[in-house]
Amino acid sequence: MDTYGENLKVTVFGESHGPAVGAVMEGIPAGETVDFEALGRFLQRRAPGQNAYSTARKEADEPEFLSGFQDNVTTGTPIAAIIRNTDAKSKDYSELKVKPRPGHADYTAAVKYFGHQAYAGGGHFSGRVTAALCIAGGLAKQLLEKEGIFVISRIASIGTVEDEGELLESTEKNGFPTVSINAGATMQACIAAKKAEGDSVGGVIECKVLGCPAGVGDPMFGGLENRIAAAVFAIPAVKGIEFGAGFTAAKMTGSAHNDAFIVDNGKVKTETNRAGGILGGISNGMPITFRAAVKPTPSIAKEQKTVNLETMEETVISVEGRHDPCIVPRAVPVVEAAAALAVYDAWLGRRKETARNA
Amino acid sequence: MDTYGENLKVTVFGESHGPAVGAVMEGIPAGETVDFEALGRFLQRRAPGQNAYSTARKEADEPEFLSGFQDNVTTGTPIAAIIRNTDAKSKDYSELKVKPRPGHADYTAAVKYFGHQAYAGGGHFSGRVTAALCIAGGLAKQLLEKEGIFVISRIASIGTVEDEGELLESTEKNGFPTVSINAGATMQACIAAKKAEGDSVGGVIECKVLGCPAGVGDPMFGGLENRIAAAVFAIPAVKGIEFGAGFTAAKMTGSAHNDAFIVDNGKVKTETNRAGGILGGISNGMPITFRAAVKPTPSIAKEQKTVNLETMEETVISVEGRHDPCIVPRAVPVVEAAAALAVYDAWLGRRKETARNA
Amino acid sequence: MDTYGENLKVTVFGESHGPAVGAVMEGIPAGETVDFEALGRFLQRRAPGQNAYSTARKEADEPEFLSGFQDNVTTGTPIAAIIRNTDAKSKDYSELKVKPRPGHADYTAAVKYFGHQAYAGGGHFSGRVTAALCIAGGLAKQLLEKEGIFVISRIASIGTVEDEGELLESTEKNGFPTVSINAGATMQACIAAKKAEGDSVGGVIECKVLGCPAGVGDPMFGGLENRIAAAVFAIPAVKGIEFGAGFTAAKMTGSAHNDAFIVDNGKVKTETNRAGGILGGISNGMPITFRAAVKPTPSIAKEQKTVNLETMEETVISVEGRHDPCIVPRAVPVVEAAAALAVYDAWLGRRKETARNA
Amino acid sequence: MDTYGENLKVTVFGESHGPAVGAVMEGIPAGETVDFEALGRFLQRRAPGQNAYSTARKEADEPEFLSGFQDNVTTGTPIAAIIRNTDAKSKDYSELKVKPRPGHADYTAAVKYFGHQAYAGGGHFSGRVTAALCIAGGLAKQLLEKEGIFVISRIASIGTVEDEGELLESTEKNGFPTVSINAGATMQACIAAKKAEGDSVGGVIECKVLGCPAGVGDPMFGGLENRIAAAVFAIPAVKGIEFGAGFTAAKMTGSAHNDAFIVDNGKVKTETNRAGGILGGISNGMPITFRAAVKPTPSIAKEQKTVNLETMEETVISVEGRHDPCIVPRAVPVVEAAAALAVYDAWLGRRKETARNA
Repeated sequence: MDTYGENLKVTVFGESHGPAVGAVMEGIPAGETVDFEALGRFLQRRAPGQNAYSTARKEADEPEFLSGFQDNVTTGTPIAAIIRNTDAKSKDYSELKVKPRPGHADYTAAVKYFGHQAYAGGGHFSGRVTAALCIAGGLAKQLLEKEGIFVISRIASIGTVEDEGELLESTEKNGFPTVSINAGATMQACIAAKKAEGDSVGGVIECKVLGCPAGVGDPMFGGLENRIAAAVFAIPAVKGIEFGAGFTAAKMTGSAHNDAFIVDNGKVKTETNRAGGILGGISNGMPITFRAAVKPTPSIAKEQKTVNLETMEETVISVEGRHDPCIVPRAVPVVEAAAALAVYDAWLGRRKETARNA
Repeated sequence: MDTYGENLKVTVFGESHGPAVGAVMEGIPAGETVDFEALGRFLQRRAPGQNAYSTARKEADEPEFLSGFQDNVTTGTPIAAIIRNTDAKSKDYSELKVKPRPGHADYTAAVKYFGHQAYAGGGHFSGRVTAALCIAGGLAKQLLEKEGIFVISRIASIGTVEDEGELLESTEKNGFPTVSINAGATMQACIAAKKAEGDSVGGVIECKVLGCPAGVGDPMFGGLENRIAAAVFAIPAVKGIEFGAGFTAAKMTGSAHNDAFIVDNGKVKTETNRAGGILGGISNGMPITFRAAVKPTPSIAKEQKTVNLETMEETVISVEGRHDPCIVPRAVPVVEAAAALAVYDAWLGRRKETARNA
Repeated sequence: MDTYGENLKVTVFGESHGPAVGAVMEGIPAGETVDFEALGRFLQRRAPGQNAYSTARKEADEPEFLSGFQDNVTTGTPIAAIIRNTDAKSKDYSELKVKPRPGHADYTAAVKYFGHQAYAGGGHFSGRVTAALCIAGGLAKQLLEKEGIFVISRIASIGTVEDEGELLESTEKNGFPTVSINAGATMQACIAAKKAEGDSVGGVIECKVLGCPAGVGDPMFGGLENRIAAAVFAIPAVKGIEFGAGFTAAKMTGSAHNDAFIVDNGKVKTETNRAGGILGGISNGMPITFRAAVKPTPSIAKEQKTVNLETMEETVISVEGRHDPCIVPRAVPVVEAAAALAVYDAWLGRRKETARNA
Repeated sequence: MDTYGENLKVTVFGESHGPAVGAVMEGIPAGETVDFEALGRFLQRRAPGQNAYSTARKEADEPEFLSGFQDNVTTGTPIAAIIRNTDAKSKDYSELKVKPRPGHADYTAAVKYFGHQAYAGGGHFSGRVTAALCIAGGLAKQLLEKEGIFVISRIASIGTVEDEGELLESTEKNGFPTVSINAGATMQACIAAKKAEGDSVGGVIECKVLGCPAGVGDPMFGGLENRIAAAVFAIPAVKGIEFGAGFTAAKMTGSAHNDAFIVDNGKVKTETNRAGGILGGISNGMPITFRAAVKPTPSIAKEQKTVNLETMEETVISVEGRHDPCIVPRAVPVVEAAAALAVYDAWLGRRKETARNA
């Protein structure tokens, strides 16, 4: 279950403090030219050590591609890529094997793997593994862009601070990924304040997929909501997802919620987009929109109650070391990566259908 | 992508007005005795025509099992079951092929299947197909109960009317599935009012899985959140899902959100359950909790704007026929079915691990 | 593992003496017109009770399609079809639960399913289930024919009697599926002789796929050999498969075995076809050829040694009831069905690639 | 389709002259101690440059494990391992892009990947990739041995030279993997003679799985024959497989072929093992036996006819460079690896069933 996808199969591997993290991608067509510099820039958006409010851990995060390319063009056979872990400090983590950190997978991994889990830095459950997810998702994002399909996102809120304006284009140029520069500044101040308190804070990420034609997605378990959710929940700390009006729709009436069909330049569109671009699991040609809830970073300096799994006595823990007081900014490209994987996978399936009916 | 599951594979088939809907289940162990009467009662909770606020369409909804049983005991080979469509009225639907209903899959299905979709009553995208999902999920729910794992749920809200109290046990006995009888009565009045206006209303369903031991679920894409979301979004009208504190967690600090580990009767538990019983995608032994947002029924008598796909002219539609002014009450057992499928599937995988370490 | 396929997923269910056998097919494109009469004729080739040397069991073997069609055209959503078991005589089989038949799955099924297997007539392991395989394979065969790809086959040998001539076209018109009418007559005499002795006999089936373009199939585990073998070994009694020169190739030198590439009417072909149309798992444009070894029917009237699983005492069994003294003739269309499933599945995958490069 | 397995999922990647070949394994239980020295010895059996009749290409073939281990014990999360290509000589291969080698995948890969395939040394279709298969299979073999299940094999024939005696134990100690040292010597002489002629020769490999309990395997497409064949045909040059009596069974009568059930030390066994240890796709407790036909190495110095794909003119090719005049000896451990993967995968599924019925 570290593998995702139907037409593009991605397997993610690695541990926070192992030799490397990586991904193997099966199903990327032959003949695709990849912009490795652009991929590198995409990975840098997730990379640590960039600013005051992210972990001091430094990693080059430069992927090495081991297979699947000939002269920077895809061969059509599996693509494998790895990122070496160059700055792992295992000594920070010796305590974790017996004293699970609240809000982390330390305890559940210990139970599931009978004490054999890689415990240093959260092992396979570390956010570090999302670097591998971003290699695969970054490639999918590039391939979608060639088809005129663009994945954009923004931080919709940090704690109770909300962004202003509508997400219409990439927020990457803004540095801090918000539509409103002012709101972004307030969010950064909020994060800095929590860090000073030895605490952390959560937030919401909004993501849109623009340019996706109608007809992408499948019924039942293959719907775009199912596919996107199955990918986005792979991101540690994501605890909720809603499409279009989402939870707000639950408060509405049908007449207020339904998106009326209209004709625009000879094309069928909807007057509004409360459906988030998805009807019956299938894209309707409008922007695919969703919001993901990210919980506050569980690693905090503040003392917390936990249990010593060996003595079964209650104790306390204060999580030292290098942590993001807010994981949301670094999670933004990861959400894009997950969305890109899901949409590109469904889009490849759609190609199969259009080929038959060409 | 009409197939779900890793250890228990379920394929759902059928159309609203075809000969039958059904499910094939692969992976249910040999030697399980099934209580078909209990399954029948479970299916009745979803069945139409039960009360003032649900469609007048009447179906026996009695499944016929075609394989996988010997003397009411599972053989271990695939179980196939079907429900005949006995009350299909295709003439109600002739208009839908050219005039897609807002909020329905009529348009997206027409694009995806190049006009070959079964259009009567929404075809494969009809809520009717969830009857098949409930056969599979109903069996999974029974099998989980034998292991001491119980799936319960309630309507958390209809429109702006919220239930009161905490979900601690099955609400089935209450008829209308709420914890508070009074809140339930208010909700029913709200639904009746919307029906009188030729309109509809949405709501939120809360579901809990009690008794699930720690260690069930997998990393990355195999997390319980991923699995449950991938199943629940198969239910038409579900547009959002959140686990534990969900979107509220995004507003919180780490110190306020983390669940402290404690020792209770020699067992590790958490003092609170904001994680919704899931850490790193794996159950931690606390109740698994999630909430699903259900949009208002798109089928409404009120006139709505749509497009004639043949003439490409804008027109209007008023959806006649038999419709639920609120699908939420009938969706409650379907959410339980989806949750049961997801948890039972993950639980079977866990059995494989515990066997190795027995 | 009762499910086969990557792009066309087929799940087969049912038991010999249960209510029905059937298949669910996911991935058949929308808009395909199906010739149900031709499918019925195909199923009749496998049906019992046709002649002196096949079981007297009579079944209409007429499939009922439950989903996936609108006006005889595929909708693109799952196709479910069943065949009712109308002539099951369970009383013939009461003894089998404790006294496993040599050469049958009675014993292994009893172990695997802890005694809960459907034991009457071999249950899920009965050749009866291949009727469901033939529904799916028969559809795949029709869909391939629309693309100019034809699956043909013949009995290459029964016991030590070999067919003469080369397989160049369908042998269906010959009644008994051999190229040489004389050889076919000798084979039938051989079968009749074995029946008279209360014995049975095996044989070899040769199958060819004509018209398959180069480029179909995948590397490693996705090769055409892997895919075809994985389907053909689902047929009870098949114990070997070889492609092209097969086991003969193992005795040859490279210079004698390699097929030289030539240009024929501006197209690349090979001078010979010892590769059986497959290089590196991928079709090379030449006929795909393979041979399947079918063991003698294990059900024989002659007394055989077996064990009473309850008393664990050695005993004897004489398999009464209705049995084919040679299953090979009825297995011919089943081999075609399995080959058609494998090739159509790979061909659908190829469509995805060609679409990208159109 | 470079991924294999149901409970143990293995994805193989890499090209002959790319940076590395490797494998990712998902589903290996936590807590397994791995003997890396034994794995290294296993890989050396496949490694080139060992003797007079194998390619002069030298590779350390030492795998680097990137994930899935903590202190040499499996963590239960994905295991990734790679082998760097240290002796790639691309200049040998420049001609292959336009002049496909007879008997190789050069032509079919060029068609499938529209000319974008990695053509040097056969790229992803090179026998080099089986080194990755042997990492995964070697681990599976070790894990099976802990359960008392042993995979052994021998060369049954090279060209027309047959081994003598019965395969009862590992032939590894014999250096050349035959039961009869004399027969082995004759085979080596045969290979040397073909090499001197600038030719090559094929052979047959016999493999047995000893100690596998009854009840392992699944019906239909999940049978042990299906699973083993689907793995073994991933080995380049394998063109046929037969289980137990295989093609010989096709010449036999039921009374001569059926294996009588007997009681041996209170256990059910069969008097003979013509079924090759498999009935209905499920192990019956007897040794699982199969034979794989390996075609002669297609790379030969002798001049052969081929086509220039650019000019579409017929031409000739003489394959220079480093090639095995007979691939069979090096294929022996690869066949063991493929068999181990298939049996271990099915065995893990069986653990799930026994857990339920413990």
